[in-house]
Amino acid sequence: MDKVLMHVGPVTIKDDILLAGVKNNVGFTSKEFVDAFSTSLKGLREITNAKSYQPFIIPGGGTSAMESITSLLKKGDNVLVVSNGVFGDRWEAILKRYQVNVEVLRPKPGYYVKPDEVKEATEKKHYKLVTFTHVETSTGVREPVGEAVKKVRNDVDITVVDGVSGMGAEEVNAEEWGVDVYISASQKALGSTPGAGLLVLSNKAVEMISDDSVAGYYLNLKNWLPVMRSMEEGKAMYFATPPVHTILQLAQAFDDVRKEGIHNRVKRHSLVSGAIRAGIESMGLRIVAKAPETYSNSVTGVELRNADPKKVMEASITEGIEFAPGVHPAFKYFRIGHMGWVTINDALITIGVLERVLKSLGEEIRLGEGLRAVQEYVENHDNHNPK
Amino acid sequence: MDKVLMHVGPVTIKDDILLAGVKNNVGFTSKEFVDAFSTSLKGLREITNAKSYQPFIIPGGGTSAMESITSLLKKGDNVLVVSNGVFGDRWEAILKRYQVNVEVLRPKPGYYVKPDEVKEATEKKHYKLVTFTHVETSTGVREPVGEAVKKVRNDVDITVVDGVSGMGAEEVNAEEWGVDVYISASQKALGSTPGAGLLVLSNKAVEMISDDSVAGYYLNLKNWLPVMRSMEEGKAMYFATPPVHTILQLAQAFDDVRKEGIHNRVKRHSLVSGAIRAGIESMGLRIVAKAPETYSNSVTGVELRNADPKKVMEASITEGIEFAPGVHPAFKYFRIGHMGWVTINDALITIGVLERVLKSLGEEIRLGEGLRAVQEYVENHDNHNPK
Amino acid sequence: MDKVLMHVGPVTIKDDILLAGVKNNVGFTSKEFVDAFSTSLKGLREITNAKSYQPFIIPGGGTSAMESITSLLKKGDNVLVVSNGVFGDRWEAILKRYQVNVEVLRPKPGYYVKPDEVKEATEKKHYKLVTFTHVETSTGVREPVGEAVKKVRNDVDITVVDGVSGMGAEEVNAEEWGVDVYISASQKALGSTPGAGLLVLSNKAVEMISDDSVAGYYLNLKNWLPVMRSMEEGKAMYFATPPVHTILQLAQAFDDVRKEGIHNRVKRHSLVSGAIRAGIESMGLRIVAKAPETYSNSVTGVELRNADPKKVMEASITEGIEFAPGVHPAFKYFRIGHMGWVTINDALITIGVLERVLKSLGEEIRLGEGLRAVQEYVENHDNHNPK
Amino acid sequence: MDKVLMHVGPVTIKDDILLAGVKNNVGFTSKEFVDAFSTSLKGLREITNAKSYQPFIIPGGGTSAMESITSLLKKGDNVLVVSNGVFGDRWEAILKRYQVNVEVLRPKPGYYVKPDEVKEATEKKHYKLVTFTHVETSTGVREPVGEAVKKVRNDVDITVVDGVSGMGAEEVNAEEWGVDVYISASQKALGSTPGAGLLVLSNKAVEMISDDSVAGYYLNLKNWLPVMRSMEEGKAMYFATPPVHTILQLAQAFDDVRKEGIHNRVKRHSLVSGAIRAGIESMGLRIVAKAPETYSNSVTGVELRNADPKKVMEASITEGIEFAPGVHPAFKYFRIGHMGWVTINDALITIGVLERVLKSLGEEIRLGEGLRAVQEYVENHDNHNPK
Repeated sequence: MDKVLMHVGPVTIKDDILLAGVKNNVGFTSKEFVDAFSTSLKGLREITNAKSYQPFIIPGGGTSAMESITSLLKKGDNVLVVSNGVFGDRWEAILKRYQVNVEVLRPKPGYYVKPDEVKEATEKKHYKLVTFTHVETSTGVREPVGEAVKKVRNDVDITVVDGVSGMGAEEVNAEEWGVDVYISASQKALGSTPGAGLLVLSNKAVEMISDDSVAGYYLNLKNWLPVMRSMEEGKAMYFATPPVHTILQLAQAFDDVRKEGIHNRVKRHSLVSGAIRAGIESMGLRIVAKAPETYSNSVTGVELRNADPKKVMEASITEGIEFAPGVHPAFKYFRIGHMGWVTINDALITIGVLERVLKSLGEEIRLGEGLRAVQEYVENHDNHNPK
Repeated sequence: MDKVLMHVGPVTIKDDILLAGVKNNVGFTSKEFVDAFSTSLKGLREITNAKSYQPFIIPGGGTSAMESITSLLKKGDNVLVVSNGVFGDRWEAILKRYQVNVEVLRPKPGYYVKPDEVKEATEKKHYKLVTFTHVETSTGVREPVGEAVKKVRNDVDITVVDGVSGMGAEEVNAEEWGVDVYISASQKALGSTPGAGLLVLSNKAVEMISDDSVAGYYLNLKNWLPVMRSMEEGKAMYFATPPVHTILQLAQAFDDVRKEGIHNRVKRHSLVSGAIRAGIESMGLRIVAKAPETYSNSVTGVELRNADPKKVMEASITEGIEFAPGVHPAFKYFRIGHMGWVTINDALITIGVLERVLKSLGEEIRLGEGLRAVQEYVENHDNHNPK
Repeated sequence: MDKVLMHVGPVTIKDDILLAGVKNNVGFTSKEFVDAFSTSLKGLREITNAKSYQPFIIPGGGTSAMESITSLLKKGDNVLVVSNGVFGDRWEAILKRYQVNVEVLRPKPGYYVKPDEVKEATEKKHYKLVTFTHVETSTGVREPVGEAVKKVRNDVDITVVDGVSGMGAEEVNAEEWGVDVYISASQKALGSTPGAGLLVLSNKAVEMISDDSVAGYYLNLKNWLPVMRSMEEGKAMYFATPPVHTILQLAQAFDDVRKEGIHNRVKRHSLVSGAIRAGIESMGLRIVAKAPETYSNSVTGVELRNADPKKVMEASITEGIEFAPGVHPAFKYFRIGHMGWVTINDALITIGVLERVLKSLGEEIRLGEGLRAVQEYVENHDNHNPK
Repeated sequence: MDKVLMHVGPVTIKDDILLAGVKNNVGFTSKEFVDAFSTSLKGLREITNAKSYQPFIIPGGGTSAMESITSLLKKGDNVLVVSNGVFGDRWEAILKRYQVNVEVLRPKPGYYVKPDEVKEATEKKHYKLVTFTHVETSTGVREPVGEAVKKVRNDVDITVVDGVSGMGAEEVNAEEWGVDVYISASQKALGSTPGAGLLVLSNKAVEMISDDSVAGYYLNLKNWLPVMRSMEEGKAMYFATPPVHTILQLAQAFDDVRKEGIHNRVKRHSLVSGAIRAGIESMGLRIVAKAPETYSNSVTGVELRNADPKKVMEASITEGIEFAPGVHPAFKYFRIGHMGWVTINDALITIGVLERVLKSLGEEIRLGEGLRAVQEYVENHDNHNPK
């Protein structure tokens, strides 16, 4: 088999999705494109359980989608950022470019800010908007965003969740939780190509989009809103040229998600990520996320005692797997992305390669221990394929 | 044959370019991607004749690339926009979202602002930055940007050219002309997929990028600059996930451009666009660009006397060609994009289809007249393929 | 646009068909393959109007399919070959390798053997089997096979029609005409990739397949018959490895044929071939097929007075069209294939390129005359797209 | 990851090979095709170590290539078939359709006919031609064909080796061994798509091709010989339409083989097949090939005590691996193909899936044992990737 991407995005992409973009004559006004756009918008609503919400697909990715929420902010607004890591901090970096006031809550590395701590802050002071991170891609820490949002939604105007590594891998109930803005990107657990930032907005959030927001032009949702509405109804409309082929692929990804069923998809992510962590732990390695309830379905950080993470990654590529580098300064680690179309077989080769590579790089590993743990985990947890 | 896109982008894309993006396991840290990124950056420098310039590839397209020049502007800066149409006006719309002062020069519809008029303005007042449009995509009007920039470059700090519909179709000599920023996008005359904004910046422009610019975060060249430098040297670096597959395709497009030769490429665009206009004019139709020296190699607006442009476009799709709608309010017209990989055969089918469609929709057309004009134009101008 | 194949097969293939073969994990026992095989078998029956017939898809192409009818012959059988050209003669070349008696009827070059002449022969002597050629690919001559078969079917046991350049371009009513075996190949007017020989056999023909036929092993329909029956019912069965990807593509081609409608498909071929011949004739060139009623929907031979056919073909490739060489010794000519997915736009570029190429090679051509003839032909004959 | 084919052909194919066939305008006279054909012919010579031999690529596959050696036989010739299983018997089935005398040597199931036994036969009687099977695909038994051929080559006129499951996975030294005809197919260890039969012939073999052979027409090497010679020199030539896209893909496969190096390729196959067998045996299962020296690099038959092979195959598909059914009547088994582009990761998932599937179907399996054996085998044998 070819090299496999156990990366945090792009991940290994199914050929049907890639080939859906091999269209040499589809322009942004073509019926085929408009249909794909409409399909994708509807898919966004379904996958976030947000029937009444307005979906957006904008160029870029997670970061452009995050920045686009400046369309809801006005000069001087107070924003609270709940940051569990590098991508939580990105909210601060983005918002500090604008004339709004930003405050940040942070946990110890490898943990998350508890819902009660957020509540404490929102009770003390009124924030127009508070941001959360469903799964912090830098550490793999999952935050109980449903619980947190429910706690504070009456204190603040708008709750925003960065679901970049959440959508498609974790259960999302945006509407029921009261999340006003749920954000993601095409290349993560949806398993498509990068190039599109994704959002769903509650009606309250849509109403806050205004001409006198602090937003710029290209990432201003005011400019994209009529395009979204028109496209969903099957009518081409232009603001700026969308990434046509990326969206053709995204529509195929949503079709594949529908075929699998969103619930089955989350279960599959849970099974595979559990199997990988079982393998990791049975090798005696530590996971960056420090509390089991914060283990995510999409990303696992692996701490190393002896081996150099860079060398682990290079040797693993030689063995046919590409992992993602660690980016959080508090840990010596690399990251395993287990998102998109991962299966138990990906868990097996991940642990199989790591056993040999880590052993050769000086970690104390007994070959086969990790793999047996994977098998036993699957044996005990896989009930979705009754044989 | 399948439907052909005679559109303003995406255009009909060669299969080798599309297939270059069919990679299921190339992440943003993969060697294959870094190589493609590096190839594309080098290609940008070559195609703009700008050896000493810094190239950028950022997510989005023409508009995101335009907005990214806010990275060079500070609060209160004076900017002069030379606008020949809808996309010239876009500069104003973008810049008005920021705390800079914008003034606009405009010509009569179908014309362009003469270099002397710009000179007059830049002599009267000091502008930090002045923007031009190489080819105004909304009307097909080409501006003599080389001449204009040379005239004013000593009056202003930074000259910016929107070459969205220029790069790949028109001769560009950014360095010699003294253009500080030349902007384009992947899906136009480069003939690749949409999703990437392209820029080259002179050293002077690069030095103006600063932390205290008015720019936001995602489109802030300050954030992308180290990525460009690292990628060109073959080392993966991350700021935000790039559109990996779009860039794999872009690299293939640049390879194909190199194989053709940039000069040959411009000549081909000139030949095909000339043949199409010969056909259009021999049918008795008027071209939106009002002076022959402003005819562009990439876009031609076609005015209609009787027929409804929307109906022309719909009927043409049935006949296998998709044109672009007109977007300039001053004209009743549609647009022919003749960019990317167009050949004489595209000119033949464009005119052949229009003859029949326009006749059926009430224009006075004698079948075969336009086609004869195409053939004669080619006979008189095609010396690049000596037989 | 890219180079276009106006060839006699492979022809220009639609991307959806090519991409249907991009499957990296479909083996000959995979469900996906069995389904595609089944779809193709059903498609064969539909396109030949032969509801009660047994379809076969065997490796190879027209020639392997032709040779497979030895499965119906026994030592000493008399066979009559009605040959209108090179591919009619191929029947003789094939059958002479076997212990059967072959006689051949031939017309003047550019003509076909009249049904009455065949009737005369079958009345004089009993033939086990008589072969016809629907469209003789070497000359483009179409034979009235329906009429001919009806005349002789009671005199002979088995009637065989080589429909290699017929299926998909001409009306076929195998059952009503009394054709016992209708043969074709995947890469002709079905517009798919080469690699598959196609047949439908009447029950009478199937019953004649026997262990003691003169046939060899690989092309012995006795070996393939159980595979066809099993595959059609959705059950994998093996005799020899089939060209899996070729058949995945063929199934897509049949899907596309169904979407278009067989009748519409024949009309389109008729329109395009008529337009091309109108252009050819208005340039003053002669067509190889000597009687208008023998003009085929799929192939046109073009005689040249002065120009060297080889040079015409080479120069045309430079201009973006690849034609097929002439292969019949009686003519100085080349062949235009107009099969598969051809449209009026292919007719336009065919004639447009030929005008310029032929003029440059010394034929007396007035540029635009051929193209005007194309346009007028379309104006007068195209009523399938009411506007 | 997607389903993986651990099948006996087609196997899992690399995307670059599949995509090499996505060409919509390459006809059999196109330069691109002629180049690919030429590349493939040269590749055949290299991979068989047969510098002075004439390569052939004919439509079909292993069986059509086998039958084509009738081109070397005349009426009444004596042929000895050394058959180690179903595909050895196929030689008999083929040759019995022709007027030659066939005798067969057979071993016990799971074994091979010893070279000395063959020698005994060829000393007793003169055979024009003797056939061997490098790897018997039905059982996975490898025969020491080099040794056997050397022993008998002076007794017989022509030695033929069926290398269908050998070429690309096993060392082949056709010229040194004195093999006159070495046969294979595109979809086996070359890892390309099915549709092409491959042969190399010694000069002696080529000289035996004659007009009065017993061969038919389509599989008659006399007809293909001038095409091979012309194509290799870069000149299009026609006998019957070749499977153009299959050959474009085959040329890419040969390019990839060259990049890897033939020797490295054989070592990789040896490593992966060894690891798989280590896993199988550590699970307590028996291998169909009964003597370790007959284990092949390409196919392993796995005997089952309790589980139904059909159920194992079905359950394995659910778990993402498709195996091949057993076809030899002497065993209750299924087959693992480990050919083409297989890696250690394929060995891991093969054993991982089998552990769980076999356990669920009643075999006594301790989860993790097979996997540990794979890891230890690799640890002890993999020295081609020094880390």
